[in-house]
Amino acid sequence: MSKGFMLVCDGSNGAGKTTVIQGIADYLEQQGYDVVLTREPGGTPIGEKVRSVILDPSTPEMGSMTELMLFGAARAQHVEEKIRPALEAGKVVISDRFDAATFSFQHYARGIDLETITTINELALGGFKPDMNLILDLDPQLGLQRVSQRGEGLDRLEDEKMEFLHRAREGYLAQAKADPARFCVIDASQDKQSVLSDCLKVVDALIATNRNRKND
Amino acid sequence: MSKGFMLVCDGSNGAGKTTVIQGIADYLEQQGYDVVLTREPGGTPIGEKVRSVILDPSTPEMGSMTELMLFGAARAQHVEEKIRPALEAGKVVISDRFDAATFSFQHYARGIDLETITTINELALGGFKPDMNLILDLDPQLGLQRVSQRGEGLDRLEDEKMEFLHRAREGYLAQAKADPARFCVIDASQDKQSVLSDCLKVVDALIATNRNRKND
Repeated sequence: MSKGFMLVCDGSNGAGKTTVIQGIADYLEQQGYDVVLTREPGGTPIGEKVRSVILDPSTPEMGSMTELMLFGAARAQHVEEKIRPALEAGKVVISDRFDAATFSFQHYARGIDLETITTINELALGGFKPDMNLILDLDPQLGLQRVSQRGEGLDRLEDEKMEFLHRAREGYLAQAKADPARFCVIDASQDKQSVLSDCLKVVDALIATNRNRKND
Repeated sequence: MSKGFMLVCDGSNGAGKTTVIQGIADYLEQQGYDVVLTREPGGTPIGEKVRSVILDPSTPEMGSMTELMLFGAARAQHVEEKIRPALEAGKVVISDRFDAATFSFQHYARGIDLETITTINELALGGFKPDMNLILDLDPQLGLQRVSQRGEGLDRLEDEKMEFLHRAREGYLAQAKADPARFCVIDASQDKQSVLSDCLKVVDALIATNRNRKND
């Protein structure tokens, strides 16, 4: 059976990831693709338990190394139990966040050294990489306004200082600049339809690449 | 204030760790020490949540890298939040298991390569090492008989095959042989009073060492 591909939707909180993911999934399913929607941290029963530990607002005392390893643990399980088997079965996996978020939040924003994050991440991924990261880029102030308009409570990570969120945004942009083949930055300050339209152009290119790869 | 010291009580399941730990704590408190009892995985509110994820018998699908990183996450929090502050305050910390268990169960028994385990462990410990590991050594068959006589249910790790437990035991003995200054093997097939008596001799030596260190 032919191999599927994996797309990550990432970026600032409030940038519209949920809408974009559903729009891409609908678009791919209309073309006959079998789509698996997932998220990080989480994506598996074990990963979702780890997610609830990471995001629990009652434990602000969590150390940065603890947090990093919890993300790593959830990711290792995610790749092994869910992502690899889905791709081997020819499915398309779309994940709400993945490893780019760890580099943005834990390295660029929180300041853990790059070597440590790379070490944990490589152990968690075991050689795997997603095919494309769509970075929905938005000023964090605007993102938080959108989140608060939705009336959602803030979790422990969203409740960080604005300065932290600006550094995380810079982290996404730096990663995209360093690896243009696997990252595409989308202007998420546009209206929803334009954001989705920009994303679907990237998806079309990914489908074409994947088709060529299969024909090789 | 003078620095305290840390003692780990480790070894096979059913070897009598709980009795030994309480006996050592009583002995030290009678001499005026402020004793902190703790355990791994766990020891902190975050660590105890991670413990419940690790030991949950309903998730046998947990990958070995996931498990290793969960142990690492709990340990990082344990050292930072509980152990270092207690030692800085001059207290004695006694932990039911610590990093030696990870080498025994995840490397010797489960087969994860030593370099990976050492990497995760060093990141979790951040340069910290306990002063002494008491290894309560017992044939795993006898240990499981004792556990089943106590009528306790087996958790996910205790429910492993006997062969796995034999390899873990060999792992403890190998670590003790490699680092005699930080490990002491106690024959746990003896009666409870003899096991505790052997352990208290090690504790006496540790107190003397610590007193000399403080007088330097």
